[in-house]
Amino acid sequence: MIEVEVKACVKDFSDVRERLIQIGAVKIKKEHQRDVYFNAPHRDFGVTDEALRIREIPENGKNRIILTYKGAKLDDVSKTRKEIEVDVSEAKNTTLILENLGFQRAAEVKKDRDIYHINEFIVTLDTVYGVGTFVEIETEAHEDENTSESIKKIFDIYKKLGIEEGFERRSYLELMGIV
Amino acid sequence: MIEVEVKACVKDFSDVRERLIQIGAVKIKKEHQRDVYFNAPHRDFGVTDEALRIREIPENGKNRIILTYKGAKLDDVSKTRKEIEVDVSEAKNTTLILENLGFQRAAEVKKDRDIYHINEFIVTLDTVYGVGTFVEIETEAHEDENTSESIKKIFDIYKKLGIEEGFERRSYLELMGIV
Repeated sequence: MIEVEVKACVKDFSDVRERLIQIGAVKIKKEHQRDVYFNAPHRDFGVTDEALRIREIPENGKNRIILTYKGAKLDDVSKTRKEIEVDVSEAKNTTLILENLGFQRAAEVKKDRDIYHINEFIVTLDTVYGVGTFVEIETEAHEDENTSESIKKIFDIYKKLGIEEGFERRSYLELMGIV
Repeated sequence: MIEVEVKACVKDFSDVRERLIQIGAVKIKKEHQRDVYFNAPHRDFGVTDEALRIREIPENGKNRIILTYKGAKLDDVSKTRKEIEVDVSEAKNTTLILENLGFQRAAEVKKDRDIYHINEFIVTLDTVYGVGTFVEIETEAHEDENTSESIKKIFDIYKKLGIEEGFERRSYLELMGIV
């Protein structure tokens, strides 16, 4: 699956929240996410632009845990990239498996995320601890699909939200100066 | 967790099944297991004696899927080794994550497994497609625990089952000539 995504750094969310409602977006949920990123023993993900992550999301009194691989970015304007996810039963043993295979814990990112839906798009308002506040708009595409139309629509939504600058292709890890 | 395990090749299970009941073992369940083994991009598991496996077990109309890492064998008489497992929601995406990280599918093993419990031990009767019939006796130990007492008890159970030869430290992959 391809994750078609554009991120923008914003000062705060007050304007964005109002405009999201005005354009018909629906707030789905609020999540706290704790992400642990790993680097590989055989290639440097900082160079190859890949990512391997264990995400923990407290949900209904227990943690949902997701293992995610992200490929290198596929174009020069967005954060569009291959993304593969699987739910796992335990963060501890998933970490141990990765570490025994030679992967090394590289960084931890904590954020609060408000999630909105509008048509086929997900809009998230991220408060990333120690980094800042960001709006991400994303949708999914198949691997053989042309993503330029989706990217155009994403920038249209940004325009409607009054966001025309601050676009950011760097990951939260890069913004933290970790990779 | 350490998996303390001894395996033996047997001609058939008829005698073993009778003796298992006589010594008080309880049959827990029967499973069909489909195992896919992967090799690593940065070291040869055939040389390092490690294993990385996705196991699918049809269970109550759906598949239970387990990702397992096994470390090198820790002694010269048994198959005792570090084992770390995590349940995953999907075999397809787990495979895709491993393949995108550079791991390569090395082999597939299918088997029917009858599982018995006796005290702290699990006794399995494995019919491995294309390989043969095997009895495995195993228990778990903590990483800092001395396993020699458990190994002695396992050989005592084998004796009670009338099995005093055919012990096999090679994995099913090695017996299939794959690694």
